[in-house]
Parts: sequence; C-alpha cells; structure tokens
Amino acid sequence: MNVGVDFGGTRIKAGRVDGAQIVAAESQSTGAGAPPGEVLDQIASLVRRVGGSPSKVGVAIPGEVDAAGRCYRLPNVPGFEGVNIRQELERRLGLPVAVENDSTTAALGELLFGHGRAHQSFLVATLGTGVGGGLVIDGALRRGARGFAAEIGHLLVDSSPSAPVCVCGLRGCMEVFAGTRGLMARYAELGGRASEPAAIAEHAQQGDAAAARVFAEMGRALGVALGQVQKLLDLDALVFGGGISASFALIEPSVRAALRACVFGPPTAEVPLLVSALGDAAGVLGAAQL
Amino acid sequence: MNVGVDFGGTRIKAGRVDGAQIVAAESQSTGAGAPPGEVLDQIASLVRRVGGSPSKVGVAIPGEVDAAGRCYRLPNVPGFEGVNIRQELERRLGLPVAVENDSTTAALGELLFGHGRAHQSFLVATLGTGVGGGLVIDGALRRGARGFAAEIGHLLVDSSPSAPVCVCGLRGCMEVFAGTRGLMARYAELGGRASEPAAIAEHAQQGDAAAARVFAEMGRALGVALGQVQKLLDLDALVFGGGISASFALIEPSVRAALRACVFGPPTAEVPLLVSALGDAAGVLGAAQL
Repeated sequence: MNVGVDFGGTRIKAGRVDGAQIVAAESQSTGAGAPPGEVLDQIASLVRRVGGSPSKVGVAIPGEVDAAGRCYRLPNVPGFEGVNIRQELERRLGLPVAVENDSTTAALGELLFGHGRAHQSFLVATLGTGVGGGLVIDGALRRGARGFAAEIGHLLVDSSPSAPVCVCGLRGCMEVFAGTRGLMARYAELGGRASEPAAIAEHAQQGDAAAARVFAEMGRALGVALGQVQKLLDLDALVFGGGISASFALIEPSVRAALRACVFGPPTAEVPLLVSALGDAAGVLGAAQL
Repeated sequence: MNVGVDFGGTRIKAGRVDGAQIVAAESQSTGAGAPPGEVLDQIASLVRRVGGSPSKVGVAIPGEVDAAGRCYRLPNVPGFEGVNIRQELERRLGLPVAVENDSTTAALGELLFGHGRAHQSFLVATLGTGVGGGLVIDGALRRGARGFAAEIGHLLVDSSPSAPVCVCGLRGCMEVFAGTRGLMARYAELGGRASEPAAIAEHAQQGDAAAARVFAEMGRALGVALGQVQKLLDLDALVFGGGISASFALIEPSVRAALRACVFGPPTAEVPLLVSALGDAAGVLGAAQL
C-alpha cells in the first residue's frame, strides 16, 4: 500500500491508500511561516503516523515542481523555491517519494477513480485561492515537457494595460478574477461582507445580488479561459474540483455562456461541465498513485 | 504507395508519396468560386493524374473537418460547409480517402519526417491567410475529441471591446493580427505598398521601418497566443510552417519577447522556435500518411 500526501497551503493531509479507498488518514494545519525544513519534518511525521509499511509515498504540492522533484514555485508556502522536496523527504523517510503539482495529482486521481472512467480527454480545474489545472489527453496524464503544463490560472482573459496584477506578476490572468482571493476582494468592493468564500456562496443562495454577481463574474473569467483550452484541445469534459466546486451551480451558467461566446463552433463549447467525482479525497488518492 | 493532396484556398497539389519522398506531383489553381462538386472533380482528376495504383488517398483541407470526413468550416473556399468530402471523393475515386485539417496534416508530416524525430511534443503553427495549428503531444498527433484541436489562430490576444473582428466572428483573435490579411491591411494603414506578404518581407529586409513594424506586431500577437499554449501544454518545440515562415527571422525576436513577457517562468518561454523541416511539401507528405 502507498501513502498519499496532500500538502496544502493551510492543511497537510496524509492517507494510506488501497486503490480508491483511504484506509487510514491523518491531518494537521500547515506550519504557517515555519522554515521548509520544519514543514518537511511535519510531512514525514504525518506519513509515519498513518502507519503501515508503505512501499512508496506520493506528495501533491500547491505549486510547480520539476521532474527531479525540485520545487520551482510554491506561492502560498514561503521558502520552498529551489528545495528538492523529493530528496528531502526520501532522506527523512527512507522510502521512494514522488512529488507532483496538486492539480495534476487530482487529474490522476480523476483519471483512475473518477470521471476518467467515462472520459478520455479532460481538464481538472481546481478552484481555490489560485486556479490550478491538470490535463488528461487520450487516456494519459500530460505533464508537459518540464512538468509545467495546465497552468490554466494564468491564461490571459483581460489584455487591457490596466488589468489587475496576478500573484505571478502578469496582468489579467484568469485566477485574478476566478481565484477566491479575487472573489473576496470583489465582494467587499460591491459592499458585501463575508469571512470566507463559502459564506459568499451562502449569501448568493439566499438571494444576495452582490454575491450572485461575483460568482457570475468568476464564472465568466473561468469560461473565457476554458474557451481558450477548448480551442486548443477540444476536450471531451471539463471537471471542477477544489473548495469552490461545491458551489458549482452558482457559476455554471456564466461558465457556459462565456464558453459559447468565445468558441466559434458549437461542438467544443457544449463540452460537459462536471464536478469532481472524488471531492476532497482527490489529492490524497491521486498522490498515492504517483 | 499513397497519394497526398494539399487542398489549399489558392492551389491544389497532389503527390504520389513514398515515405518522405514525393515521386510524382501535379498541381492546379483552385477553381475560384466554383461549386463544391466541381472542386471535388478537380481534386479527383489531379489524384488520377499523379497515377500509380494508390491504396489510399489523404486530403489536407484549410478548415475544420469532423471524424466522419464532413467539412465543418472552410472559410477560404465557399460552399463546403456540411459537405462530406471523404464520401464525395471515395465515390469519385473508388478508393479509401481520409480528410484532415491542413495544419494537423502538416504536424503529422513533421512528426514522421521532420522535427518530430528530435521532439516529442510540439505545435506546428501554419502562417498564412489564417494561422492554423497542429499538435503533437508525447509522440502522437492530438486531434481533440471531435477533431477541432489546435485552433491557435482563434486564441484571444486582445480582449478590448473595440478589438478587430476575426473571420470567425469573434473579436481579438490572434489571426486578426498575425494572418497575412491583417499583415497587408496594417502595412497599408502605415502607408506601405505591397502586392503580397512576400513583398512586405523584402521591404523589411531592405530597411523599410513600416514593414519591420508590421512583422514585429505580427510576432507579438503570435507570441502572446503561443504563451497561452506554453502555459497550457509546456511543449518542447514550436514549429513554424506556411508561406510566411520563410521570413521567420523577421518575427522571431518579437515572438520570443512576447513569449517571455507572458509566461511567468523562464523554462517554458525558452522553448526552441523552429522553422518547418518540410517546407511546402509538408501538406502532401502528411496527407499521404493520414
């Protein structure tokens, strides 16, 4: 049995996995502001706590990693740039470790245990603080030549020189409008008050016009970016995961409308829009299969 | 031996092909304004004229076609929408016929006989009246779920409401700025005079500032769109074909600059930019392998 680790910006989850089943799980808040060495110790300790005698460990990280396991960018957990997470964990655990981007990992989980059973080519869009992506084409995960594929959050949706700046440094990225950071800021700008994205979703469901509007705007940005994906890849499904996907009904109409408006031919715009079949477990399940 | 047909908006070329060699070739101007039936007769007659006893015929068309061989869109040759080109030619020739988008066909040629021998994942961008694309990922041609993948000419590069309208009906598509139609219009707007794109290239090589500028602007639009391709696919090469690729040196600096400016991490922006290894023969060579 393998162990899968979902290393998130706010929480680290580890699970001992048997196929599509998590048979033992442990989780902990991510040590905020702790040096990378301590966070790596924390991950190793969680892996030991789920027990068993795993033959290997897979780790999903919320950022980019190269084929050697070296972290290229990890925006929500400072200090990891350049750290070889694979080597550091192998040294601590004495086991083979694989490290992969969390959305790519979720796409692997979806491929093996979720919508991949019905669809050959799909994107998993992970809706959270940022918007990540994982890509399956013709039945296989496609990581890109250097492991940097499916960075859908940074597709251009607003080319105006005054477009808001993204965490990546570029202007007008989809994530600026469709990530929860943007969602919270936009809601406040419209006079709304909410402590977290789920609260905005509740307000929208209760008829709050400003809340409905920020979700519609989020869906539009997402739809424009996914329109570019469809023009380039003509996938047979688009799958949505991450926290906000629980509120997918709020954004679906505007995602579809934007897709239709920015893809010239009807067939690719009518692609099925699906919510992840694995929910919260996608990270741990996918990581165990890395 | 197979016969490959490159059905262009201005010229139809047919060739009897042995591997990477065209052993017999015939070509003719495309019957301008002729009804589809006559153009199909013309293609069939060219196939007969190259002779041999082909076991199958492949046809590259400058538009979209579905998996059944039915033309979805053929902007430069009127009347073909909805025509099943495969069936029509099979009836005329009594031979199995395969029909594919011309850029996808060029990518197949490149995969088998060109840069595909050194690169696993690449895009072929065909620079002409429109800008087409063909996609190879992990050593195989990727046509998309319905055959509509790699429509790079219609990727969004200008989201402003006043962006120029593309032949597809959308605003701000890359092709509006990087297709030869846009190139000619922009050169005239800047006071330049040229009867064809090759003449603008000559002027640019002779130091004409307006000509240099329109190529730089073309390269910028191309680079922004290819930046989106790299963020999504992280390919290991970008290959340029079509008429304008002969002048690739004029656009390369601005393509690279735009790529660097719109991709946040250096590795994917430093992808090799290559000119097609097959040149004009890509269509016929690729079509013979469909």
